[in-house]
Amino acid sequence: MLAPRSVAIIGASADPSRIGGRPIAAMLSAGYKGRILPVNPSRAEVQGLACYASVADLPEVPDAGIVAVAAKQVPEVVAALGEKGCRSITLFSAGFAENGADGEKAQDEVLAIARRHGMRVLGPNTLGVFNVGLGYYGTFSSSLEMAFPLAGNIGIASQSGAYGAHMAALARLRGIGASVLITTGNEADVTVADAIGWMAGSDEVDVICAYQEGFRDGPRMIAALDAARAAGKPVFMLKSGRSRLGASAAASHTASLTGDDKVAGAVLAEHGVIRVRDTEEMLDFAYAAHQRIYPVGNSLGLITVSGGAGIIASDEAEAAGLPMPAMPDEAQARLRALLPYGTPTNPLDCTAQALNDLSLFEAFTRAALKDGGYRSILCFLTYVAGGPSLAPRLLDTLRKIRGEFPDRLLALCIMADEKITRAYQDAGFLTFDDPSRAVRAIATMGRVGDMLAAKPKALPTPPQVTLPATPPDEHGAKALLAEAGIAAAPERVVHSADQAAAAAAALGFPVVLKIVSPDVVHKSDIGGVRLNLGDADQVRAAYAGIMEAVGKAAPKARIAGMLVARQLTGGVECLMGINRDPAFGPVAVFGLGGIFAELLDDVAIRPCPFDVETAREMILSIKAAGILTGARGRAPADLDALAGMLSKLSALAAAAGPRLRAIDLNPVLALPDGAYALDAVIEIEGEDRP
Amino acid sequence: MLAPRSVAIIGASADPSRIGGRPIAAMLSAGYKGRILPVNPSRAEVQGLACYASVADLPEVPDAGIVAVAAKQVPEVVAALGEKGCRSITLFSAGFAENGADGEKAQDEVLAIARRHGMRVLGPNTLGVFNVGLGYYGTFSSSLEMAFPLAGNIGIASQSGAYGAHMAALARLRGIGASVLITTGNEADVTVADAIGWMAGSDEVDVICAYQEGFRDGPRMIAALDAARAAGKPVFMLKSGRSRLGASAAASHTASLTGDDKVAGAVLAEHGVIRVRDTEEMLDFAYAAHQRIYPVGNSLGLITVSGGAGIIASDEAEAAGLPMPAMPDEAQARLRALLPYGTPTNPLDCTAQALNDLSLFEAFTRAALKDGGYRSILCFLTYVAGGPSLAPRLLDTLRKIRGEFPDRLLALCIMADEKITRAYQDAGFLTFDDPSRAVRAIATMGRVGDMLAAKPKALPTPPQVTLPATPPDEHGAKALLAEAGIAAAPERVVHSADQAAAAAAALGFPVVLKIVSPDVVHKSDIGGVRLNLGDADQVRAAYAGIMEAVGKAAPKARIAGMLVARQLTGGVECLMGINRDPAFGPVAVFGLGGIFAELLDDVAIRPCPFDVETAREMILSIKAAGILTGARGRAPADLDALAGMLSKLSALAAAAGPRLRAIDLNPVLALPDGAYALDAVIEIEGEDRP
Repeated sequence: MLAPRSVAIIGASADPSRIGGRPIAAMLSAGYKGRILPVNPSRAEVQGLACYASVADLPEVPDAGIVAVAAKQVPEVVAALGEKGCRSITLFSAGFAENGADGEKAQDEVLAIARRHGMRVLGPNTLGVFNVGLGYYGTFSSSLEMAFPLAGNIGIASQSGAYGAHMAALARLRGIGASVLITTGNEADVTVADAIGWMAGSDEVDVICAYQEGFRDGPRMIAALDAARAAGKPVFMLKSGRSRLGASAAASHTASLTGDDKVAGAVLAEHGVIRVRDTEEMLDFAYAAHQRIYPVGNSLGLITVSGGAGIIASDEAEAAGLPMPAMPDEAQARLRALLPYGTPTNPLDCTAQALNDLSLFEAFTRAALKDGGYRSILCFLTYVAGGPSLAPRLLDTLRKIRGEFPDRLLALCIMADEKITRAYQDAGFLTFDDPSRAVRAIATMGRVGDMLAAKPKALPTPPQVTLPATPPDEHGAKALLAEAGIAAAPERVVHSADQAAAAAAALGFPVVLKIVSPDVVHKSDIGGVRLNLGDADQVRAAYAGIMEAVGKAAPKARIAGMLVARQLTGGVECLMGINRDPAFGPVAVFGLGGIFAELLDDVAIRPCPFDVETAREMILSIKAAGILTGARGRAPADLDALAGMLSKLSALAAAAGPRLRAIDLNPVLALPDGAYALDAVIEIEGEDRP
Repeated sequence: MLAPRSVAIIGASADPSRIGGRPIAAMLSAGYKGRILPVNPSRAEVQGLACYASVADLPEVPDAGIVAVAAKQVPEVVAALGEKGCRSITLFSAGFAENGADGEKAQDEVLAIARRHGMRVLGPNTLGVFNVGLGYYGTFSSSLEMAFPLAGNIGIASQSGAYGAHMAALARLRGIGASVLITTGNEADVTVADAIGWMAGSDEVDVICAYQEGFRDGPRMIAALDAARAAGKPVFMLKSGRSRLGASAAASHTASLTGDDKVAGAVLAEHGVIRVRDTEEMLDFAYAAHQRIYPVGNSLGLITVSGGAGIIASDEAEAAGLPMPAMPDEAQARLRALLPYGTPTNPLDCTAQALNDLSLFEAFTRAALKDGGYRSILCFLTYVAGGPSLAPRLLDTLRKIRGEFPDRLLALCIMADEKITRAYQDAGFLTFDDPSRAVRAIATMGRVGDMLAAKPKALPTPPQVTLPATPPDEHGAKALLAEAGIAAAPERVVHSADQAAAAAAALGFPVVLKIVSPDVVHKSDIGGVRLNLGDADQVRAAYAGIMEAVGKAAPKARIAGMLVARQLTGGVECLMGINRDPAFGPVAVFGLGGIFAELLDDVAIRPCPFDVETAREMILSIKAAGILTGARGRAPADLDALAGMLSKLSALAAAAGPRLRAIDLNPVLALPDGAYALDAVIEIEGEDRP
């Protein structure tokens, strides 16, 4: 499909501006290395090639079939291709699932035919693919009329045909070599995940750009992303639909904190995806990545001839989390002796004087690389570097430096005509005209480096867990959690006021009493909870009070007993939860209790399961983490216990299987020694509470 | 200086690549409309022009003098220009304040000479200015060797010469007409504020781009910004130094919440500045503004041939706060009848079919403007619009639409060669190649529109306020605040346990007791505060306890008495404060108390004074505002009282004069009825507390 040795075009047209004519014209013009086999019953010749009346008449089994006929003819053509032995088809034809229920039915029929013949299907309603290295243009994109894409090691995978082609054309316009484009259209079979997976294994692609709207098959995408990471290839993704709340938001409290987009973001980040904010950032990052220099432990040395540009770039580096440590004192002293009015810290301002005397520029830049040891360098040289007399001399200097430091990421901020710009690029330097964009791209290459270098994390031991047939009550939920190692406050279930008083004495005062009933979720609302009971008499009175209140408010509720729990105080109220995402399975959420999570949206999200270290990172990643680590004179919370609980919860969720819909531990009390779930709700698929 | 009829170049060079030769070569090449008067004692002719031996020998008084001689000759040359009668000079010469103390002294001397002659000075160490309309190039920027700037109505003002020239060159590269550049260098006299002020009054500039590092003279900048707004000209500013904490951060709690950059940001926003994140955004916005169509109450109608691009642009519009209301039902039905498989909501997806049949595109676009009534339109047409056969027909359609809706902001997302792109622009459409950037630019034009249309706000009545000679104690501070109408909890100062008990009875229990001493700021730390005193005996005991504790902890502290205050409970703890910024004067800060302001940095900042409505906006602008408006079943706080207090505080701060250093009201208790300062600290210049 993507690198065929022969391709049949069914619905081939002699007119190079028609859908069935464009791929042929493009391949002829680009010198496609395989054989083009036009099929059209009413022509003997198409664009100078022999044309066949039908698929059956083809002189060989084509590696790929491109179908450019009306929707109603598609089933017949697909069947013919299958019978001929073709195993991969690209369906340009529209009029399928994108047009509603009837179209969807027709699409399913086509897919069934293809499956019967073991064929893979791209589309329908796809703009197709191209592969520059092979001269293969299985696409009817009219952008080829403007210019053919440049050879290069960047691949683009896009659900949207028009947008994928737009990205590819923009790359071409900016001189970026994006040589593989795969647009997946209706995704009856082949998805963006498959396209990423193919690129992960392809020698032609080192850098992957993807546009994706939503995820239906999470595991397929994750496998593709992991393959890309294992192959050392970064994936830059523009995922749209940021703004829409997911369909799953509803049931549990946890669910309302995890829109689809946030979950997808957490999963993508976990699997190494660099999410971009727009097309331009995508192309900037892909361009920066094409050299395949991904600094680990990135740092930036900034050589500038303008103080202003130095400050702007420093601002951007700080915002992007890219360290700019100062030069060593000794090197500073040496450079200051060379150029008294320069500033050899970092930014290293070598002033415009360094362009009059290039030995100064060379000294500053080499010092930054050698003495400063920066993994990345950005030189702000502006339009001066474009000057025809300076450029050749500057190039000599830069080539020397490139040769000495082959593993560093070297970038220039310049303005020059295309030829001179290309010369700087050929010398091994990235070029940008905006220092802020340059810094963001450099910072991102460091993120890629760290992502590729990261060791796989240990996974927590999966607990033995058997979900009950129906959702457990609070006590049952806590028992289930306890088996997975998740602690609640000490508690017992009792069935009389006397038992309650005895249990309280055993647990230690003060205690809290809560009604236990499968029919009551919001216990406080109906008077089913009494706090801060200091002695046996208070416990007895509270027992009677709760029974009376619940009896009045919910006379039909089944009462399973009364929960007596030691009342823990102090500490910080947190919340932990699990929500099952339709595409990606269980995700864990952590936040502070009360208004922090709800009002300030200050939560951390991760796909399950994850280890204690990851749990600790999650906890510390929320903005209000200081409350847990001792801000304003508080005693620091027991992060070991809290992170351990969160990791165990994630392991439980992963092991519980798809019937687990959600878990809410709200609040979890984080004390200086220990962390305890004070309430627990477990929701199970197919069983709704009243 | 910026539009001279004649210019003398002192240090004129025959070599067009030297600093003293470049402006002459550029003006000759650009056809400068005034007279160029080279001065060089060793030449009779320079670049074909008569050259004069000295300033005194000049045949006329030049409007402007450009000084391109060594630093040590500058005083003499400036004096000569002054004596000749020249009133404006541009000092290219470097070697002044940028080189440290000696250079600063030399700069002061030059400025003194200029002042004696009533001359304005640009620089020293400036790259100069250009003014395309006049062909005036008082600059030695080598960017002119690449290309001359395009005529247009955009002006650039930059502290940094190299960066200003870089911006100008980048504008040129992108086909944007930035025809005035002013770089201010060391700013001995003329500042970026002056440059903005000049552009505000200039017929040649409609859109102002500014690069600024820091502010020394706030009022001058504010006057310039207000002039620009009054003239209907937007100011886009890249202010660097975001990351650095200001020098003023220290003294008060309030001060630590207001870095210089945040204060500058608040002041700039208040005076209509659109702050940009980088050069590219600056140029995108300036380009979008050049048509001078600034929608008031902006909304976006998005016409697209790609579903994917529609989603991407919608995401961006939501992020940018740009509304995209749906099309009216009736119009949707009409469009659906025209194109059954299109989506006529908003985005209006008219599918690729609309490019085969332009009447469809026209119908969708006209409906968006007429029926949808959107103030702005973006059409995503990608590279298809660049097709040589489609472009002329599309242009006809677009011209018709432009003519029918002259007041709307109309933009295209296209890719085409320069000539075709220019044709779309000439038809009155903005063009972009990235839909996200297009949306951000359109959203910004709406912000400009609303900013220009905003009515000036009423200012609060300035209170009569006389600051005491030394910082007041808590009771004194509250008395001063009370005069300005700011309420504290009812309280009295007493001098014995019996007086305290009597006062408590009069105020109503429970009460709080606090030590009053000019020598004690952190009262709680030394046992100087007792809360929640429920009867007279408790009050008497607390009185004795405080006196004993303070006597031990601070034996030398002067005791002015004991404060008895009614203890208010419930409500929400807020903080309000004033901090004096060295450039911009007093700024007010509002946040929630406790961790919100400190840990989460969730505060609102405004320059003083401001009205109650602005105060209310500030309060509602913090992320945690929901806590005040009734989140999670709380009683809503009395926003009228809270906003009234904040506005009065701002009026007090503005009226108090420069001796007022800071005010901290922390906490302010926001109750359902009323808001009360529970503590107050006023800091006064020159008087430090122990």
